[in-house]
Amino acid sequence: MIGIFDSGIGGLTVVKSIIDHLPEYDITYFGDTARTPYGTKSCNTILKYASENTQFLLDHGAKIIVIACNTASSIATKYLRQKYNNIIPVFEVISPAVKLCLKTSTKNRIGVIGTRATINSNIYEKKIVEKQPSAKVFSVPCPLLVPLVEEGWEKKPETKMILKKYLHPLKTKQIDSLILGCTHYPVLKQIIQEKIGKRVKIIDSSIAVTKEISEYICQNPHICKSLGKNNKSHFFVSDITDQFKKTAESILKKNIDLKSSGGTS
Amino acid sequence: MIGIFDSGIGGLTVVKSIIDHLPEYDITYFGDTARTPYGTKSCNTILKYASENTQFLLDHGAKIIVIACNTASSIATKYLRQKYNNIIPVFEVISPAVKLCLKTSTKNRIGVIGTRATINSNIYEKKIVEKQPSAKVFSVPCPLLVPLVEEGWEKKPETKMILKKYLHPLKTKQIDSLILGCTHYPVLKQIIQEKIGKRVKIIDSSIAVTKEISEYICQNPHICKSLGKNNKSHFFVSDITDQFKKTAESILKKNIDLKSSGGTS
Repeated sequence: MIGIFDSGIGGLTVVKSIIDHLPEYDITYFGDTARTPYGTKSCNTILKYASENTQFLLDHGAKIIVIACNTASSIATKYLRQKYNNIIPVFEVISPAVKLCLKTSTKNRIGVIGTRATINSNIYEKKIVEKQPSAKVFSVPCPLLVPLVEEGWEKKPETKMILKKYLHPLKTKQIDSLILGCTHYPVLKQIIQEKIGKRVKIIDSSIAVTKEISEYICQNPHICKSLGKNNKSHFFVSDITDQFKKTAESILKKNIDLKSSGGTS
Repeated sequence: MIGIFDSGIGGLTVVKSIIDHLPEYDITYFGDTARTPYGTKSCNTILKYASENTQFLLDHGAKIIVIACNTASSIATKYLRQKYNNIIPVFEVISPAVKLCLKTSTKNRIGVIGTRATINSNIYEKKIVEKQPSAKVFSVPCPLLVPLVEEGWEKKPETKMILKKYLHPLKTKQIDSLILGCTHYPVLKQIIQEKIGKRVKIIDSSIAVTKEISEYICQNPHICKSLGKNNKSHFFVSDITDQFKKTAESILKKNIDLKSSGGTS
């Protein structure tokens, strides 16, 4: 099956996109809720956690790994590819978003929002400028958005005010595209669109990575054959609480059976 | 020395209080920043982490253990006392705050704010009613306050709005005392006082636990003798980032040498 991991439950926006666009494939999700969030942690700690999460998914029969977490994607992709790429393809959420953004951007004035770790890593700017040296990239860390989403506060006025404050420097830069550099943010897409203005194209990495996975499966029939196609999804977390279950179901818009991974943390 | 642990850096409000009131004693602090926050995690996970943190402090020579984290205090105190109390006294931040609150409350209408885990555990209400059966306790979870403090947003208007929203149900209950049931919250004490009204007495658990430790040391000269008195403090965290260092120094109001605990997580 397709194995997807995230630091918590934000990566479920990627699961939702894969289920919406590739409904036949079996999915196993692992959310490292016992150690969430990754966005405030150091590189070495994130490498260790990403590696453990990948092993958990491989042990459960994953034939494709998707890092559905921008922080882990920015820090651990190279390491995980070196460690596992001979065995299994490793997808991440950053390059697909960059590719999609450069395809649609008209003026190459690109905004990026993400956790502090993702923005500090400068990964989006590096990848964008590598492909389009004339592009101007403006990045803003938005560390409070993850807790606001996890609290289900996406429609509260305080969230709108905080978003307005975070997006203000990007508005003054007259960006034409805005990359949502955190898998929690698609939940806030509508308000972000409202605050940044209608003319800015919002790039949602969950949709971008789904397109890449879909193309890869088409081009690699042996991988396609190895994937379960029973329309089944399994959801594991390293720690279960009522709030995680509530937010997870709100992101997926359906009830799910959230299982404990049993001592991964 | 006095060993103090917390899920992250909020427990430094307790360190600050101990340094202010008992400056001669050596302190070792351990903040489990690699796995912070505890407030959203399950009981079993918190028991495991609290036990590992205590062992870390004992290995570094602690003669007194202080759980400077309400979530861990509410869930792990009994367990840690059973496990370590023959070796070492274990202090927590809840009972001292309850004791101080009941001493000063005039109408016994008491408000409690804390993380979701602390409030769900109902520990404050149980302890208050056990000592004062006629007391009325009103509890409100405030899960966004920890990330706001950790971001250094304590003076931002959004924080004031969020606090106003959180405190509103307590205002309508006409409480006369408010327990800050999370060690991060003393950082917000001034705004909390502003929003809840001047007549409400705010109970700060960092000050309450310091008083208990001070009394215990006076009454137990063999413990007093065993404690280092070189006015030295050591700060360990399971994960170091610039933001943690910045917030830690802002809480302690001085520069510190933040050391890695080396693989506790």
